[in-house]
Amino acid sequence: MASREQAVETQFTNVIGTLNLLFAMRDHVPEAHLVKLGTMGEYGTPNIDIEEGFIEIEHKGRKDTLPFPKMPGSLYHLSKVHDSHNIQFACRVWGLRSTDLNQGVVYGIETDETAQDERLCTRFDYDEVFGTVLNRFCVQAVIGHPLTVYGKGGQTRGFLNIRDTLQCVELAVENPADAGEYRVFNQFTEMFSVGQLAELVQTAGAELGHEVEIEHLENPRVEAEEHHYNPTHTKLLDLGLQPSHLGDELVRSMLKAIERHRDRVVESAIDPVTHWNPERQPLQAG
Amino acid sequence: MASREQAVETQFTNVIGTLNLLFAMRDHVPEAHLVKLGTMGEYGTPNIDIEEGFIEIEHKGRKDTLPFPKMPGSLYHLSKVHDSHNIQFACRVWGLRSTDLNQGVVYGIETDETAQDERLCTRFDYDEVFGTVLNRFCVQAVIGHPLTVYGKGGQTRGFLNIRDTLQCVELAVENPADAGEYRVFNQFTEMFSVGQLAELVQTAGAELGHEVEIEHLENPRVEAEEHHYNPTHTKLLDLGLQPSHLGDELVRSMLKAIERHRDRVVESAIDPVTHWNPERQPLQAG
Repeated sequence: MASREQAVETQFTNVIGTLNLLFAMRDHVPEAHLVKLGTMGEYGTPNIDIEEGFIEIEHKGRKDTLPFPKMPGSLYHLSKVHDSHNIQFACRVWGLRSTDLNQGVVYGIETDETAQDERLCTRFDYDEVFGTVLNRFCVQAVIGHPLTVYGKGGQTRGFLNIRDTLQCVELAVENPADAGEYRVFNQFTEMFSVGQLAELVQTAGAELGHEVEIEHLENPRVEAEEHHYNPTHTKLLDLGLQPSHLGDELVRSMLKAIERHRDRVVESAIDPVTHWNPERQPLQAG
Repeated sequence: MASREQAVETQFTNVIGTLNLLFAMRDHVPEAHLVKLGTMGEYGTPNIDIEEGFIEIEHKGRKDTLPFPKMPGSLYHLSKVHDSHNIQFACRVWGLRSTDLNQGVVYGIETDETAQDERLCTRFDYDEVFGTVLNRFCVQAVIGHPLTVYGKGGQTRGFLNIRDTLQCVELAVENPADAGEYRVFNQFTEMFSVGQLAELVQTAGAELGHEVEIEHLENPRVEAEEHHYNPTHTKLLDLGLQPSHLGDELVRSMLKAIERHRDRVVESAIDPVTHWNPERQPLQAG
């Protein structure tokens, strides 16, 4: 988070906005089904398998199924954690119904619908804040910038194609939660490490004649660069999700689209400038 | 929570206020120790023993120590849950240090210091929102109002004397957290059910000549009226906390103090008027 002002704006907008929405539902449309876009980033990277929203815990001879503990890596992701807690309360105490889609990292530039006409293209982010890793690597490959792998590149996350995002939202809407039910779907289709994605882009880039270097930058974030990661993601598959898979062909099609707009790339937006621990103070080492 | 406006004000004040404080610490006094007053209400009443902030979870053959899952019963308590997540982030990522005091229900009307002079008396709440259960029952006993037990009265919580609250804060300040450490102390000394407290007040009241009835009202809250409750609370004892205990004598001294000010009791503030599920809609029954 770049500044106090941005952190406050982010948490205010998400937490208070969602709270107002919940009261509006309670007072005016208590039967409505809230489909909320959360994020896999709410969980962080615990050393146990991540479940879909709730986990059965056996402790000192007793058992309960409780919200999965959250340990996110940014104040943005924390705003979504706060939302999740408030929404769960509204379902539990007021009897509302909600599906929280904990989405992984999205990649891709088009759906069947937007592909019909260039004027339907959506925004494509490749900067350090809003740009997701595969989009960034593809832009870097096309403009001849070394791929910016942060640290060791072992950071592993769940990914999904933008086409699958829309399929998931549709499945949630068509199969609503019960009254009083707060359910969480982990919304991603495949897992990759940052290093694996860099190699994928390097290979696909070479096939199109790009010489792609991989650079391991000092990590500007505070995150584990090697860790366990094995989140459950069966609930959307059970509802009928047909996953798209990430491979050479998809990456090549992204690279070709970026080549067509290469002259519009803002090169100054590529390198990371925000250090998550702003001073790297000695006390952080402890 | 009585209204949307109050819920928004509560979450805004706590979440954004604490966030601003964390940035101020990060940028100006990163070595300072934040001692934060949270609440035992953050945990709710899970069916397993509550630990002090974190719990070791064994799951599918792997282990991790993670934040204890939170399932609070009100939007006020949720604001404290959000604070806890933000503070833990600031410690983990920025290297700040903090102690989160998850306080139980406070009772009592004086400390050694305030007892020196009536002008040092603090506010004494006995209404449905700010009044805690023992304080409410003592006022009810003195004015001849039946004790307002909500539902079955099996709601069990951790309690502590106002004298111990101050001792706990002092112990936390004198034994600061390490740099980068976020620690949680469960701050209470004894556990009682609402029904047990009603009987205690009835007995102590009889000794002072009050005929005290116990009434089981329809519960205006959404909460379990019978549940497991066995939270750990050893960390403050390990630091030297000397607990005061709740018994007949303490209750009689409270009753006598209230008798002296009986003419100031606002009787219309006694009965609960706020229904936590505002409409008791049919869908809540599901």
